[in-house]
Amino acid sequence: MNDYQIFELGDFTLQHGATLRGAKLAYQTYGTLAADRGNAVVYPTWYSGRHWDNEWLIGPGMALDPERYFIIVPNMLGNGLSSSPSNTPPPYDRARFPRVTVYDNVAAQHRLVTERFGIERLRLVTGWSMGAGQTYQWAVSHPDMVERIAPFCGSSRTSPHNKVFLEGVKAAITADAAFAGGWYREQPTTGLRAAARVYAGWGFSQAFYWDHLYRSLGYSSLEDFLVGFWEGFFLDGRDANNLLTMLWTWQNADVGLTPGFDGDTVAALRSIRARALVMPAEKDLYFPPEDEEWAVRHIPDAELRVIPGVWGHFAGHGSNPDDTRFIDAALRELLAA
Amino acid sequence: MNDYQIFELGDFTLQHGATLRGAKLAYQTYGTLAADRGNAVVYPTWYSGRHWDNEWLIGPGMALDPERYFIIVPNMLGNGLSSSPSNTPPPYDRARFPRVTVYDNVAAQHRLVTERFGIERLRLVTGWSMGAGQTYQWAVSHPDMVERIAPFCGSSRTSPHNKVFLEGVKAAITADAAFAGGWYREQPTTGLRAAARVYAGWGFSQAFYWDHLYRSLGYSSLEDFLVGFWEGFFLDGRDANNLLTMLWTWQNADVGLTPGFDGDTVAALRSIRARALVMPAEKDLYFPPEDEEWAVRHIPDAELRVIPGVWGHFAGHGSNPDDTRFIDAALRELLAA
Repeated sequence: MNDYQIFELGDFTLQHGATLRGAKLAYQTYGTLAADRGNAVVYPTWYSGRHWDNEWLIGPGMALDPERYFIIVPNMLGNGLSSSPSNTPPPYDRARFPRVTVYDNVAAQHRLVTERFGIERLRLVTGWSMGAGQTYQWAVSHPDMVERIAPFCGSSRTSPHNKVFLEGVKAAITADAAFAGGWYREQPTTGLRAAARVYAGWGFSQAFYWDHLYRSLGYSSLEDFLVGFWEGFFLDGRDANNLLTMLWTWQNADVGLTPGFDGDTVAALRSIRARALVMPAEKDLYFPPEDEEWAVRHIPDAELRVIPGVWGHFAGHGSNPDDTRFIDAALRELLAA
Repeated sequence: MNDYQIFELGDFTLQHGATLRGAKLAYQTYGTLAADRGNAVVYPTWYSGRHWDNEWLIGPGMALDPERYFIIVPNMLGNGLSSSPSNTPPPYDRARFPRVTVYDNVAAQHRLVTERFGIERLRLVTGWSMGAGQTYQWAVSHPDMVERIAPFCGSSRTSPHNKVFLEGVKAAITADAAFAGGWYREQPTTGLRAAARVYAGWGFSQAFYWDHLYRSLGYSSLEDFLVGFWEGFFLDGRDANNLLTMLWTWQNADVGLTPGFDGDTVAALRSIRARALVMPAEKDLYFPPEDEEWAVRHIPDAELRVIPGVWGHFAGHGSNPDDTRFIDAALRELLAA
C-alpha cells in the first residue's frame, strides 16, 4: 500500500479559482510502457478508493494485463494519497481545502500522463463509479487522445437523485458535533458510522439483501454486515474532510462544465471521439441504467451493456466473480476492437 | 387537527412484555355507522402520519365516501397522538417508551372497533406504507372479521433492505449529540434535519428527481425541496423518540410473528381469508413490487396491481392526482366485489 509514486503538480490552479501550492498526484503503474508509448491505459480511482482498490481488475490473463498494457492508476484528489484535506499543510488544510472538480482531476492526470511519461495516445480509460465520471471527463477534455472509454456504474453528469443520496451521507457525517465544522482533532466516528449505515442501503440492491448475499462476503448477519463491512469501510483510514471533498466533486460532476461547453452536457457528450462501452449495473440504485441510456444516445460511437444481476452499484467493486468476469470480458472485447 | 377522539385502552400489555398503563388510542371517524354496523372501514396511519394525513383518500364521490362508509382512522402508537414517548408520563416516557409491534397496534385498534363501536365485520382495511403493514396484520390477526384488504406501498414483513434503509435514518437522528440517548429537552434538530436528507433519496424515485417533479409540488429548486418539503416534514411536530419508536415497529414488522405462527410469514399469509388487492408502486425504492409479488403468491385470494409512474413510495401520499385516482378506482372496484 505504501508502494506508489508522487507526481509533483507544483502550483495547481483549480477550476473554481483556488491554487493548491505544491499539489501532489499519487499514482501507481502496472506493466511496462512500450517503446512507442502506445500501450497506456488510465484507470482512475473511485469515491474514497485508493489505487490498490483497483487491482482486482488488473492481472495476467485479464483484459488489463500488465504484460501487455501499461496501466496507470491515479489517485483522486481528496482520497488521502493525492493532495487532500488530510495531507495538505496550512492554509489550505482540513476544512479549508478547496473545491475540486472532476475536470481538475483529469487535468492533473493529463499532466502526469504527458509530462512524466510522454504519452500522446491512450488505448483505454476505464473506471468504476466516480472513476467512470473521470473516464467520461477524459474523453471530453482530450478527445484526440483517448481511443476507448469504458465507464462502469457511473455517469457523465451526477443526476439530481444521486445528489440527494449524497446529501444524506453528508448530513450524517456533519450531524456529529465532533465534526466541528471540519476542525476536528480526531475523526468524528459517530458521524462516519452513521454515514456508513446510510450508504449501506444504496450500495447494494434490494434483491441483494433479500437473498442475504452479504453471507457470500463472509458476514454472519445483517448487523454483522453493517458493522463489519460498512462501518469498517468508513473507518478504514478514511478522513471526514476527505470524504466531503470527494463528495462535493461527485455532486458537482458534469462534463458539460468543461470549459468551452457552457454547461451543455449533451454537446460535451457529442464531442466524444472515443469508442465508448458504457456499463451500468442492472440494479444500481444511484447510477440507474436509464441515466446511461440517456448518455449513450448522445455519444457518437457508444454501446450500452448492462451488467446483469443483483449486486447493484457494487457490481463494479470486484467482490462478485460473475460481475468481474462480465466487466473483464467487455474490456477485452473493447480493447480488441 | 385537534378534532379527534381518545379510546382509553387502560393497562395495555404489549407483545414484548411491557404494560402501558393508561394507554390511549387516538382516532378520528368519518361518516356514520350503519344500524347493522356493516359499513365500517379501518384505515390506519403511516410512519409519523396523523389521522388528518389520511384524509386525501376520503371524501364524497370517492371510494371511501363518508356518506356510505363509516371510516375509522386510528393513529399508530408512537405517532404523538396515541400513546407515545412524547406524551406518556414517567416511568415509561421518552427514551423508556417500550417496544411496540404492528401486532400491538392492531390489538389496540381491534379493541376500539369492537368495544367502542360493537363492530363485528369490516368491509375493508386499507393503508399506505406502515398503514399497509397494519392492514396485513388485521387480516392475519382477525381473519374472520376482515372482508377485504388493500395494502398499498407497504409489506407484510419488513425486508432486509428496508431495515437497512431505516438504519440510515436512525443513525442520522442519533448521531446528533443533542439526542442525548433520548433524554433531550429540546428536539435534536440537527439529527432530524439529517434524517430528512437521508429519507429524501428514498421517498421518491430516481426518475422523479430526474424529471424535477418536485417543481409540481411548488418547490423552486432541489435544495428548496430538501429544506422546504423534507426538513419541514421532519420538524413539523415530529419528536425524535416518537420517530424511533415507530421505526422499531417498522423494522420488526412481520405477520409471521403473530402468536400461533412461530415466525412463519408464509403460513400467516396463507391464513388470510380477506380478498386482497395489493398495490405496490412501480418505482418504490423500499417496498419494491417484487416483494409484494412474493406476498401475493401466498395469499389465497389476492391480486397484485402495480401503481404505475415515477412517484415511488410517495405514490401513496396523496400528492399526485394520477396516483390518487388509481388507488381510489382500485378501492372502488374492491369494495364493489
